Amino acid sequence: MIKILEERNFPVGKLVPLASERSAGKTLKFRGEDVTIQLACDEAFEGTDIVLGAAENDIAKRFAPAIVKAGAVFVDNSSAFRLDPKVPLIVPEVNPEDVKNHSGIISNPNCSTIITVTAVNALNSLSPIRAMTASTYQAVSGAGARGPVELMEEVEALSKGESYTPSVFPYQIAYNLIPQIGGEQVDGYTSEEMKLQNEGRKIMHLPELNVTCTCVRVPVVRSHSISVSCHFDKPVTVEQVREVIAKAPGCKLVDDLAAKVYPMPLDTTDQDIVFVGRIRPDLTDKCGISLWCCGDQVRKGAATNCVQIAELLLK
Amino acid sequence: MIKILEERNFPVGKLVPLASERSAGKTLKFRGEDVTIQLACDEAFEGTDIVLGAAENDIAKRFAPAIVKAGAVFVDNSSAFRLDPKVPLIVPEVNPEDVKNHSGIISNPNCSTIITVTAVNALNSLSPIRAMTASTYQAVSGAGARGPVELMEEVEALSKGESYTPSVFPYQIAYNLIPQIGGEQVDGYTSEEMKLQNEGRKIMHLPELNVTCTCVRVPVVRSHSISVSCHFDKPVTVEQVREVIAKAPGCKLVDDLAAKVYPMPLDTTDQDIVFVGRIRPDLTDKCGISLWCCGDQVRKGAATNCVQIAELLLK
Repeated sequence: MIKILEERNFPVGKLVPLASERSAGKTLKFRGEDVTIQLACDEAFEGTDIVLGAAENDIAKRFAPAIVKAGAVFVDNSSAFRLDPKVPLIVPEVNPEDVKNHSGIISNPNCSTIITVTAVNALNSLSPIRAMTASTYQAVSGAGARGPVELMEEVEALSKGESYTPSVFPYQIAYNLIPQIGGEQVDGYTSEEMKLQNEGRKIMHLPELNVTCTCVRVPVVRSHSISVSCHFDKPVTVEQVREVIAKAPGCKLVDDLAAKVYPMPLDTTDQDIVFVGRIRPDLTDKCGISLWCCGDQVRKGAATNCVQIAELLLK
Repeated sequence: MIKILEERNFPVGKLVPLASERSAGKTLKFRGEDVTIQLACDEAFEGTDIVLGAAENDIAKRFAPAIVKAGAVFVDNSSAFRLDPKVPLIVPEVNPEDVKNHSGIISNPNCSTIITVTAVNALNSLSPIRAMTASTYQAVSGAGARGPVELMEEVEALSKGESYTPSVFPYQIAYNLIPQIGGEQVDGYTSEEMKLQNEGRKIMHLPELNVTCTCVRVPVVRSHSISVSCHFDKPVTVEQVREVIAKAPGCKLVDDLAAKVYPMPLDTTDQDIVFVGRIRPDLTDKCGISLWCCGDQVRKGAATNCVQIAELLLK
């Protein structure tokens, strides 16, 4: 987020980095200067205008009242408040106007959800999306900074014939797939899998949207990919979809199968744009379209989206 | 295939390995003895009873007439004859009785198709499958023996900061995903993606089956995985599906999300059984079920299935 604030030249008067005892007292660089990390406590938020949160749910809940009381707006990356009716859930390319309804807290959506809704939302102008079937291919960096470290350590250990005990992921992720992200929530779905439906409904203003999602961790370092079938109320054509996505904010149409042109996680790494391709008719539904999208979940799926929300607040 | 013939103690009187000039004259081991590879030519098939083919389509088409003329049965791994109405397309756990209708040629289906239909076919006893939405996660060994070599060479080059020019895959596959397997066929689908529908219809005797499939190459060495939603004519319950899959031939039910038990490609490597799990209601269709399956495409998806077909011929 700090890198994004710098890149986008966000008008930061004073940056106050807050963290737990573990990091308090250390310094980090912001615009070439050392800034000391302070201990997060209720008083620390006094005098702040915008608080960008990147902590777990319990920490977000712990400090939200103090942030609101201090008169700041809390842009929260955790999932603690995402489905709270009083809290806007924002993807700036999709529902920027919802920012106005905040009462001190705005939530940043789930990473795969941001990427998928950025890819498909503009299609609602053709016909409302009734349902989606999605299978995700999620990079190890989605599990935090330790994810890529574990993948690389595992690859190295395997190349030497040594054993390696994973700690970030429940099983070996190198040369493997793990079809579980998040704990079991409801009806055999994981918490991560339900977010695309529950957060997607709120972001796209489609309260009836039904989504079946399968979330899978893959040995990719960065950028999530999603195979999606969108089911619309009325038939839409591939040409219409291509035309809309080519103009959709935050999207890049990358779609020429014959020329081997399609989104790949390597190509979207360290980018803010969601690549969309493999657009074709869904063969099970005459009102359906299948597509494939990739986006950098660390940037557009988290930090960039969060800073974009802060930019909306300035407007 | 030779390893499988040994493992399953197939009653081979004499093994006659045939190949092109490139391999003719070399030897291979079969049951501990050296056997010389001979040049494939029309005359070479005389005296054979069963010919197991593992060549490209043009080679299969080139030699099929000579094999049939020699009175042998050609069990062909290529896709050359799979959709020919005179040629049975067999998964022994699904449609063994179709073997009887052969006229000298029997086709072995596509690897992902074998794994998926082995996983789902028994569910047709609950209610016929009307449609499927599938996203595949296909291992590099599906591209042949050079696939894993390229992945490993690429991983090593990247670890040294060296560049590597891929030749098996169109792009870097290490830490990446390539959403194209096969060339463009129809309506933006690849040839590989259409096989699950077209071969699935024939194998499961479901001529009206519609399938939307997205095939993706992933940096896994062995075993393909498929995320599938099955849409039935009538509602079926998760409990019914679990019960049927637990008893289905060729399947193993591996399904306890709370205990982190689900199919993973590493666990199915070098196995003949298809693992099925993550069984849950499809949230977009009250007559739908979503599941996740993995199988070793080199064994069950190719060699084992081929030898199983030969075993049916003996019966």
